[in-house]
Amino acid sequence: MNSKDDPSVYARMLTQAREQKALIHCITNYVTANDCANAILAIGASPIMADDLREVADIVKISKALVLNIGTLNSRTVESMIAAGKKANALGIPVIFDPVGAGASAYRNETTQRLLHSVSMTIIRGNLSEVSFIAGLDVSTKGVDTAEEDSTKDPVAIANKVAKEYNCIAAITGAVDTVCNGSRVARIENGTAELSRITGTGCMTTALVAAFCGAIFAIDLHSAANVAKSASAYFDASIAGIAAMGIAGEIAESSVQEKGTGSFHVALLDALSKLDANTFMTKAKIHEA
Amino acid sequence: MNSKDDPSVYARMLTQAREQKALIHCITNYVTANDCANAILAIGASPIMADDLREVADIVKISKALVLNIGTLNSRTVESMIAAGKKANALGIPVIFDPVGAGASAYRNETTQRLLHSVSMTIIRGNLSEVSFIAGLDVSTKGVDTAEEDSTKDPVAIANKVAKEYNCIAAITGAVDTVCNGSRVARIENGTAELSRITGTGCMTTALVAAFCGAIFAIDLHSAANVAKSASAYFDASIAGIAAMGIAGEIAESSVQEKGTGSFHVALLDALSKLDANTFMTKAKIHEA
Amino acid sequence: MNSKDDPSVYARMLTQAREQKALIHCITNYVTANDCANAILAIGASPIMADDLREVADIVKISKALVLNIGTLNSRTVESMIAAGKKANALGIPVIFDPVGAGASAYRNETTQRLLHSVSMTIIRGNLSEVSFIAGLDVSTKGVDTAEEDSTKDPVAIANKVAKEYNCIAAITGAVDTVCNGSRVARIENGTAELSRITGTGCMTTALVAAFCGAIFAIDLHSAANVAKSASAYFDASIAGIAAMGIAGEIAESSVQEKGTGSFHVALLDALSKLDANTFMTKAKIHEA
Repeated sequence: MNSKDDPSVYARMLTQAREQKALIHCITNYVTANDCANAILAIGASPIMADDLREVADIVKISKALVLNIGTLNSRTVESMIAAGKKANALGIPVIFDPVGAGASAYRNETTQRLLHSVSMTIIRGNLSEVSFIAGLDVSTKGVDTAEEDSTKDPVAIANKVAKEYNCIAAITGAVDTVCNGSRVARIENGTAELSRITGTGCMTTALVAAFCGAIFAIDLHSAANVAKSASAYFDASIAGIAAMGIAGEIAESSVQEKGTGSFHVALLDALSKLDANTFMTKAKIHEA
Repeated sequence: MNSKDDPSVYARMLTQAREQKALIHCITNYVTANDCANAILAIGASPIMADDLREVADIVKISKALVLNIGTLNSRTVESMIAAGKKANALGIPVIFDPVGAGASAYRNETTQRLLHSVSMTIIRGNLSEVSFIAGLDVSTKGVDTAEEDSTKDPVAIANKVAKEYNCIAAITGAVDTVCNGSRVARIENGTAELSRITGTGCMTTALVAAFCGAIFAIDLHSAANVAKSASAYFDASIAGIAAMGIAGEIAESSVQEKGTGSFHVALLDALSKLDANTFMTKAKIHEA
Repeated sequence: MNSKDDPSVYARMLTQAREQKALIHCITNYVTANDCANAILAIGASPIMADDLREVADIVKISKALVLNIGTLNSRTVESMIAAGKKANALGIPVIFDPVGAGASAYRNETTQRLLHSVSMTIIRGNLSEVSFIAGLDVSTKGVDTAEEDSTKDPVAIANKVAKEYNCIAAITGAVDTVCNGSRVARIENGTAELSRITGTGCMTTALVAAFCGAIFAIDLHSAANVAKSASAYFDASIAGIAAMGIAGEIAESSVQEKGTGSFHVALLDALSKLDANTFMTKAKIHEA
């Protein structure tokens, strides 16, 4: 069955994530690490944050997906990211890259390039500005928590360019989310502007995508014979993870009724933890071109 | 119009903070970084946490205010703070210093002195013990989250001494908050003891002060011709940021009705995110001598 | 009076924790540091997170208990842990060790051994897998947030082995919690599976144990003449801290009624902050063999 015509593909991935309880290794920032760990747990997977060069290869070995997030990068953790990424590549473990703030400093830019040239990324998930930087466009970033929209930029063209250049899945999240792999293009219209009023929702989305990918890896679609199937499944997993966050945001917003960003934050984790395949299928607004 | 006689000056700053969405660069601790980012977002500004020496100057360049918080200082981040502070000074960007735990260890004390002698601070915001240390008084700190009150110490005299010695605005927060710049003295009587029962409310207050200062910088009061005006505006911004936290604490306390510190924490961010100029004006208890 | 027959011993420790407001020094991970600080505050003590080698000895000196948690260990902080632990040993300050993820990587394993051979631990608190590793058993860890139960392993035998080998109190938390000191064995049957659905509840339990120990140290049971009495009191404090978390989890679960993990997290801190000796005595399920 083709996922293109069947929303249940994505919903089934949610069930898989809850069943597999895959260990997700995150090398990530200290601002949103707690939220990422709780998002991974809420969706049914298991997080491990470990960033020392002496141990990342060992941790990758027992994990089912690897998140590389440069939110508070430093020279120590960048080396760990590269070592972990190479190990994941060698083992066929999916690597999900979140280029937080790419475009904001020369160091972030160089590190982003270095990571992209050292590690084969399965998925790159960023906002329009971050992915535009990777696509080689001029960007003037306004920070890491801004829901920048720029009508002069075409997310599909940008994501496609990145997908082709780095042979990966490229996802741009914003008011509408775009996922491309160079041939397939999907749009996800779930979400709410409230998601941009708390920190970490981008990082959490990346973590969720990794949780969905980890479940796929765990059920062994990653063997050599299944590379094509696996790539397609990771494309679907990206959609599922992004849609899960958008749907949880909608549920949270409707449950807290303008109480404020503190309550929204709590309700978002509530919604993720209670999200089931049925609700997912009812609420998902996924369109493949 | 003189802010001394007009509470609307402070309320207007809240509106400005929401309009300007200024990027606030924080080099801060990993304990409360998430809360600081969410407080900055709740008040309408945009946070970026970045602490690597290779990038802090770049990040300062795109920011409108810089927070230096030594809560979990280490030799790597201290160098970053100095480089970032010098860059901010060169660009006229306001620097807000939170000397967390000054007095608690020789390293914190030396670092505090080193930062004060390397960087011109626009505002120093700490508790009585921390600012007393900077004033050269003997202090025996009981930690970083204690609402120490010491009736033998006069906050106004201490803040004034620090303000004059470092040519800055000095703010001491506690049951009553004191803000001095060497000539003006303001007292803020908002707040609740609940604020001392969760971690990070001091750090968040500093972050809010930076958010208010960033809005001022963004609307270009910082040009050479406006230095005096700007200094006065930053004084008002300090008051506005501190009062905003106190008012949000009062609202949170009344909304959660003794449910506990977890709910208070959530309600505090709710209150910050919903705070408007009207509520601010009604509730502010700001007195200038 | 023997604590074995009197649950009020543990309840009284809660009252002591609230009265003493002991400063608890934590060298811990960046994922759950905020939760640990808030748990320590919720139980009435005062947290300080400080991990630079230049200051940890100074911070230990003003503290009443030391937590060493290797959740996000790195080469810099491991040295700080050893220096802090040695200082605490020299001053008789209780050291509470949380071997997060022991068994998951060679580096974690080596560091765990190195810490155990460099520092005399007052209490080791971990899950079954982590303490099994310390006991020299083969473990295949599934991460740091899994509530692994393994019916082939006997927690009492494992905890007893560790307690005797390292002359410490060994606590294994899980569906049922076990505390041993080589002669006494206690079981705690409080708690809920919800505690394993959010990150940091293990770390917070360790922090609470430290808060209870800190109160004991503060009221001077630690003098040379009181070593035996003190060891017994720390055993009781371990039980009290673990039971406090379990009871708070039960209260939180009943108050949020399946709303989800975000609400449970908030309610857990609420329950800790409102927990009183009476409720503790009514709900505690502590059994000493």
